[in-house]
Amino acid sequence: MKVGIVGVGHGKFGRRSDATVQELAFEAFKAALEDTKNLERKDIDAVIIGSSPEYHKQRSIPGVITEYIGMNDKPTWLTEAACASASAALMSAYMAIKSGLHDTVLVLGVQKMTELNTAEIQSLMGRVGDVQWESIFGTTFPGYYAMYAAKHMNVYGTTPKQMAKTAVKSHHYGAMNPYAMFQKEITIEKALASPMVADPLRVYDCCANADGAAALILTKDDLAKEFHETPVWIEGTGSASAPISVLRRPDMTSIPSAVAAAKQAYKMAGVKAGDVKVADVHDCFTIAEIIALEDVGFVKKGEGGKFEEEGQTYIGGKHPVNVDGGLKSKGHPVGATGASQTVEIVKQVRGEAGKRQVEGADIGLTHNVGGIGQYCFVNIYGR
Amino acid sequence: MKVGIVGVGHGKFGRRSDATVQELAFEAFKAALEDTKNLERKDIDAVIIGSSPEYHKQRSIPGVITEYIGMNDKPTWLTEAACASASAALMSAYMAIKSGLHDTVLVLGVQKMTELNTAEIQSLMGRVGDVQWESIFGTTFPGYYAMYAAKHMNVYGTTPKQMAKTAVKSHHYGAMNPYAMFQKEITIEKALASPMVADPLRVYDCCANADGAAALILTKDDLAKEFHETPVWIEGTGSASAPISVLRRPDMTSIPSAVAAAKQAYKMAGVKAGDVKVADVHDCFTIAEIIALEDVGFVKKGEGGKFEEEGQTYIGGKHPVNVDGGLKSKGHPVGATGASQTVEIVKQVRGEAGKRQVEGADIGLTHNVGGIGQYCFVNIYGR
Repeated sequence: MKVGIVGVGHGKFGRRSDATVQELAFEAFKAALEDTKNLERKDIDAVIIGSSPEYHKQRSIPGVITEYIGMNDKPTWLTEAACASASAALMSAYMAIKSGLHDTVLVLGVQKMTELNTAEIQSLMGRVGDVQWESIFGTTFPGYYAMYAAKHMNVYGTTPKQMAKTAVKSHHYGAMNPYAMFQKEITIEKALASPMVADPLRVYDCCANADGAAALILTKDDLAKEFHETPVWIEGTGSASAPISVLRRPDMTSIPSAVAAAKQAYKMAGVKAGDVKVADVHDCFTIAEIIALEDVGFVKKGEGGKFEEEGQTYIGGKHPVNVDGGLKSKGHPVGATGASQTVEIVKQVRGEAGKRQVEGADIGLTHNVGGIGQYCFVNIYGR
Repeated sequence: MKVGIVGVGHGKFGRRSDATVQELAFEAFKAALEDTKNLERKDIDAVIIGSSPEYHKQRSIPGVITEYIGMNDKPTWLTEAACASASAALMSAYMAIKSGLHDTVLVLGVQKMTELNTAEIQSLMGRVGDVQWESIFGTTFPGYYAMYAAKHMNVYGTTPKQMAKTAVKSHHYGAMNPYAMFQKEITIEKALASPMVADPLRVYDCCANADGAAALILTKDDLAKEFHETPVWIEGTGSASAPISVLRRPDMTSIPSAVAAAKQAYKMAGVKAGDVKVADVHDCFTIAEIIALEDVGFVKKGEGGKFEEEGQTYIGGKHPVNVDGGLKSKGHPVGATGASQTVEIVKQVRGEAGKRQVEGADIGLTHNVGGIGQYCFVNIYGR
């Protein structure tokens, strides 16, 4: 049995002081319902929420959301894997359907972060690292990824300009994405002149905290055509973990959970990296996109920076990546990001991405990292 | 294909200032590994953590735990459904195996609560209710369940003495459970004389916050016998939701998600309430146990209090319930509770419960409620 995606919905990402967490969820759910054909609430058997609960004043958010969106008495729970929480929800939905327990499942990635002030966010973010041995000494997320960047520059000669080019590309496509937080172009000069956050990462190397939600409706193969003209199939799915502590990372130029997850997903789908026509990878920082290109096998180890500099991740390049703007310009509402990536790739594989469409995008990939790589989920989609 | 439980482990519940959250998890995992036959870490394909993350200073706890217990690079994520978080993990493991994605999965229910002070815990607990419309007015968990108790007393004549008897039973069995937080008998007089918490609920009507962990190892049928002499099968599983807001509950004498989940589980297992020989139900308050007896169909609506008073939930009674001490005397480390219930029922169904053994316990049930009933998971186990 195959599992297909028959509805996708995406809310506006950004500072959403106009909406509660349940209202953000409803916005995405409504769009996903409208994206389907003939599918109604009653056809959905379960609601799986991807989110990091600690950012919200409201706890028990599957309860609040499921009530608000009118889905009682369907089962609901939350999955959490830091920034990959929605990919854990997507994998859970895949398992729910494939196991025969449910026919049709709603995945909602949702996060509200901007109710907290910067100090609160920084404290919460730091505690995603190892509290006992690392964050107690002041490690932060930009700090962790700055270590990756410094090492990658040192070993492979990656340059600040290559990282800046990655951000320029993200903003180029973000400017065409109505759901993105930052819809404006930037230049390499502007990126390189922006304030240093954690050497060598500058402001334009970093994604922004955001509020937002994205929704996916999955169903089994023999129902899929009823609910959408062009179901997009989950052809492969992979997931792995790695030590949370950087002390135990043998190589700070790669994320081992991503390498392992990609390998699993390719194997299940029976495709190779070269077959992938479009991808969304987890660019929480520009260096993270460069490393992702290498980890999923789009380029050889160490060549990610050069690949970006050559513009090969643009539409028309060898491997179009994050042509929705990526985390960098869409914003990164942590629990929503994995679902947002999937919305984009589903639209690309359907051929519905408008002026951002990659021609012939029959096979797509998402790569969603949690924390500093303690989790990674990779999915391959086809039509 | 059937899914079986081939290893269970339980740590000591209580104020565990001696252990971090990852150490608590390891304690239970080690016990579960030792409970299996021939099973090693390498045989486990995934680690699903049931927990409520907000209580912990350490975030990203699947990452921390999976590293600490030596399970990298296996996939890991967390499930959350308030006090039913571990049952969501168990259901996820069931789906993972049944779907063919994984053969063998570790479920870890774990929670550390006692690092926070009472005010912090109360604030966190209140926010499990509806923050926008209810907890802002000061609702707390004892307050919510006091409403259930008052209504049940009013409609069905349930008495404080019947609730006290429920607590006396819990402590009677808790006194024989080396993992319980409170291993001492109490009397009806003592319970009825204890301080009022939220009228009509007194101290001995309420379970206690605790630290603790419990672990389950699940596998598919054709591997099960390799890993344990007596696999215990998940014969039926059910889950449902209900509005989080009490404003939308039509009947404050029953938890509708529990009624629906039980119906699903019985149907899948092909058994009736009368066939169940032993059960663990979610007695966060004594009234919750009384209502659970009715919701899962052990007694007719309104007769739960009388059933307790007659001692019918003791070993030798018509429906032995919570003969491990229940949440009431084991303590309630929220994310661990669902797994703890399953450990007990697996031991009962195997016939390994020692002096607390229910004779002929071939069919067992767990009933695990999240929040004030916004979630409920019911499972039926057999051998």
